[in-house]
Amino acid sequence: MSFKKLDLFRGITISSDHKDPLYLQIYNEIRNAILKGRFKAGIRLPSPRLLSKIWSVSRSTVLLAFEHLIVEGYIETKPKSGTFVCQHIPDKYIEVQSENAVDDDLSEVKIKYSNQFEFINKRFREHRKLVDIPVPFRPGIPDKNVFPISKWRNASNSIYRTGLLESTKLPLGYSPLKENLKEYLTVIHGISCKTEQIVLVSSTQQALSIICDILLNSNDGVVIEDPGYIRVQSALYNAGVQVHPVPVDKEGLQIPSKNEFKKPPKLIYTTPSHQYPLGINMSLKRRFELLEYAKEANAIILEDDYISEFRYSGVPKTPLYGLDTGNRVIFMGTFSKLFSPALKLSYLVVPERLIEGFETVMSMIHRGPSIHDQATMSLFISNGNFQKHIRKVRKLYSEKRNYIIALLKKSLKGHIEIQKNNAGLHIIGWLPEGVSDLEVSRFMAENNIVVPALSSYTLKSIGNKGALLFGFTGWDIMTIEHKIEKFCLLYKEFLKGR
Amino acid sequence: MSFKKLDLFRGITISSDHKDPLYLQIYNEIRNAILKGRFKAGIRLPSPRLLSKIWSVSRSTVLLAFEHLIVEGYIETKPKSGTFVCQHIPDKYIEVQSENAVDDDLSEVKIKYSNQFEFINKRFREHRKLVDIPVPFRPGIPDKNVFPISKWRNASNSIYRTGLLESTKLPLGYSPLKENLKEYLTVIHGISCKTEQIVLVSSTQQALSIICDILLNSNDGVVIEDPGYIRVQSALYNAGVQVHPVPVDKEGLQIPSKNEFKKPPKLIYTTPSHQYPLGINMSLKRRFELLEYAKEANAIILEDDYISEFRYSGVPKTPLYGLDTGNRVIFMGTFSKLFSPALKLSYLVVPERLIEGFETVMSMIHRGPSIHDQATMSLFISNGNFQKHIRKVRKLYSEKRNYIIALLKKSLKGHIEIQKNNAGLHIIGWLPEGVSDLEVSRFMAENNIVVPALSSYTLKSIGNKGALLFGFTGWDIMTIEHKIEKFCLLYKEFLKGR
Repeated sequence: MSFKKLDLFRGITISSDHKDPLYLQIYNEIRNAILKGRFKAGIRLPSPRLLSKIWSVSRSTVLLAFEHLIVEGYIETKPKSGTFVCQHIPDKYIEVQSENAVDDDLSEVKIKYSNQFEFINKRFREHRKLVDIPVPFRPGIPDKNVFPISKWRNASNSIYRTGLLESTKLPLGYSPLKENLKEYLTVIHGISCKTEQIVLVSSTQQALSIICDILLNSNDGVVIEDPGYIRVQSALYNAGVQVHPVPVDKEGLQIPSKNEFKKPPKLIYTTPSHQYPLGINMSLKRRFELLEYAKEANAIILEDDYISEFRYSGVPKTPLYGLDTGNRVIFMGTFSKLFSPALKLSYLVVPERLIEGFETVMSMIHRGPSIHDQATMSLFISNGNFQKHIRKVRKLYSEKRNYIIALLKKSLKGHIEIQKNNAGLHIIGWLPEGVSDLEVSRFMAENNIVVPALSSYTLKSIGNKGALLFGFTGWDIMTIEHKIEKFCLLYKEFLKGR
Repeated sequence: MSFKKLDLFRGITISSDHKDPLYLQIYNEIRNAILKGRFKAGIRLPSPRLLSKIWSVSRSTVLLAFEHLIVEGYIETKPKSGTFVCQHIPDKYIEVQSENAVDDDLSEVKIKYSNQFEFINKRFREHRKLVDIPVPFRPGIPDKNVFPISKWRNASNSIYRTGLLESTKLPLGYSPLKENLKEYLTVIHGISCKTEQIVLVSSTQQALSIICDILLNSNDGVVIEDPGYIRVQSALYNAGVQVHPVPVDKEGLQIPSKNEFKKPPKLIYTTPSHQYPLGINMSLKRRFELLEYAKEANAIILEDDYISEFRYSGVPKTPLYGLDTGNRVIFMGTFSKLFSPALKLSYLVVPERLIEGFETVMSMIHRGPSIHDQATMSLFISNGNFQKHIRKVRKLYSEKRNYIIALLKKSLKGHIEIQKNNAGLHIIGWLPEGVSDLEVSRFMAENNIVVPALSSYTLKSIGNKGALLFGFTGWDIMTIEHKIEKFCLLYKEFLKGR
């Protein structure tokens, strides 16, 4: 061992102040020195006795480190000659390990994305600019003060006391919550079902993904409403199925003609109680026609009723689920809009013949929402806090809604036509013909007002009438007033500048 | 209006004791009578004045109900003649609504499942029989008393007090937790990375699903270890990609030959620190070879280190992530095994060039774990309870492990060979040649002892040597002793009966 080689070891500090045990420090130092190429293959290591003196540690400590390095193939012992750095760690590994080196072919960091990713990434990047910023009037932002946090915390604590967190084998959801939901479904949606038909999921995307997993192959088609949820579009493109965007008229989703698609769709996604984002309540006639179409196609319908709790006037129509006689409709509701999108809690009512499929896929592939959250929600319903919360939220949002409608009508009369819906968390304002909603929306975004363009929810063109969405739930009356004023000034400026 | 027809209305009870308002009761009764075919299309309804007398309600209440029925298209008013049940609700809808009728073609309730579903359903139904029952010695069941519930509850409460639940736009995870994890990764795994590279996910399945969404098309291949996680196999079959099961030897995952697959795989899933379920720690040589193979294939590696916290002896080897120079390795760790599978919290270290893809897919398609749980975990780490918990769990499981190994060695010497690993939550017992692990496992299950057969984790045959898995974490020493005794008696009985 030359003086220079021994210096390599003298340069290493082994200290009992270090967080790792002594032997582990020695192990790491020698391993790194080998990998970084400082200790070349074939060199002989100093004896454990010598190293123990250099580092002021016991010989057995050095031996322990050596033992690990031998087991892992970094060093080897030859009888009567000593311990050597192994030959069989190929040079090239060691070379590329020299400080900060990376493969040449990665210097440009090119990635080949999947086919579906390109679509989703484009939608995400477009979408984000317009609607991902939590400033007025981004739709779907709950009022900061609406979440009943102290009551929720109390309920959560009661659940922790039961030790429920350990129960994991509830792929379809927590039974007491399902019992409570069963009753709730009757009261709010007029739906009667068995407890076993209720399945808890995290989101609409998860529901779609599960249904695709159970029933659809990549050449199968899915009918969706156009315009519609960007996340729904993305989830389906991502699932690799054939997406068929179908226009919406005043009665709701239009019924495709019999031979519109090469083969009949296997799934129809619809929001009949309050079409997203247009707010249309599907007519009874159309509901029957849609069920008839689904029957002929032998398709499943996912009826997403994300909004019934935010109905401010009028009587709800019977859901498709209630009109269906073919066990074809999966009904979906959600707590996310009522409480907080951070609470990822939605529920399905699944026809009995599909329960087995849900059980398999939710056991093997998907995981439902937190059992703790489900149990907390269940308690929240049974102690009455849930019902109180619904009333409070509905009243609060109803006031904000009336306020923003009055403001918009007063300020924009003749310029933007406000559409009055019975429900929802945003208002639709129709622009005069020839005014591009995308252009207005972009202009507003530059001025820190977020009014998403209807066109950005659309996959195919819907003619030249544009509209803007005004979310009203996330801000107080003062902010709404102030921002609508600003919007009006900017809008008039925009029209002049055209 | 004939006497008989009027009777239809007299048969309806409208009561102020009912949960619904009066007008809504009237609305529902008339709507149902139309849909069930009791009120035929075209019949004239009694006047609101007459009905208000029959039901003892005000005329305006009846008018309100009529108004809704008219809006929804159930009834229509003809000037000077009265109100009639609409013609345009087609007879067929009304007929099929007659009590309890369902479509004929559904009487047998046939479902056409997707291609991928058949595989997953079969695996689930097989798997469930053997390993889904929480009795000894099912692997992966945490000790009931291990979850530090009161400390966790306190941390959870502190988080509720911050009002964090509202923050929803954290698709890649809660930053303070990522900061804590960054430090933790250095200490436990010897990994250094930037905070932005850390991504919180719910599970291994979700991680695989995300990676497939970003990078893989349906004709792309994924190499997995065989035997391996049943849920990993399922997630990949479900994703519709080409699954390549590759055998495992004493050094870990075997390296496929250059032309083994039609085209090079795009993803390699591996558990190098403790192969699941065999417990093999991949040799250093093999680690380098695997990285070289991945480089040539231009594949991404998902390195699932689910177990480093349960290392009872020995020094961990450098993870693939630490040896990789090509930004090809995604490292994965989990809290689920350390705390509770109900806490769905795992983390990835993602090469920088893949962060954009994760951001898109986790914003648009997948949802990460509960932000509240992430924040609670973060607090748990920063207040030191996490580290205390790891030490406690490791000690507890280490004791159980030593105990079950001693018992098995003593009782089954010469009959079952116990494999000693440095880590893990189960013990592998190799059966003598010619003894079928599936048969033993089935026989034990009939006698309420769950010892999953190695073969049930295997996709392709691995020769005629079978083994059983003994999970030891979920039961106390007394139960382990009692059940091993029972197992030994049954095993000897089984061998005699062959």
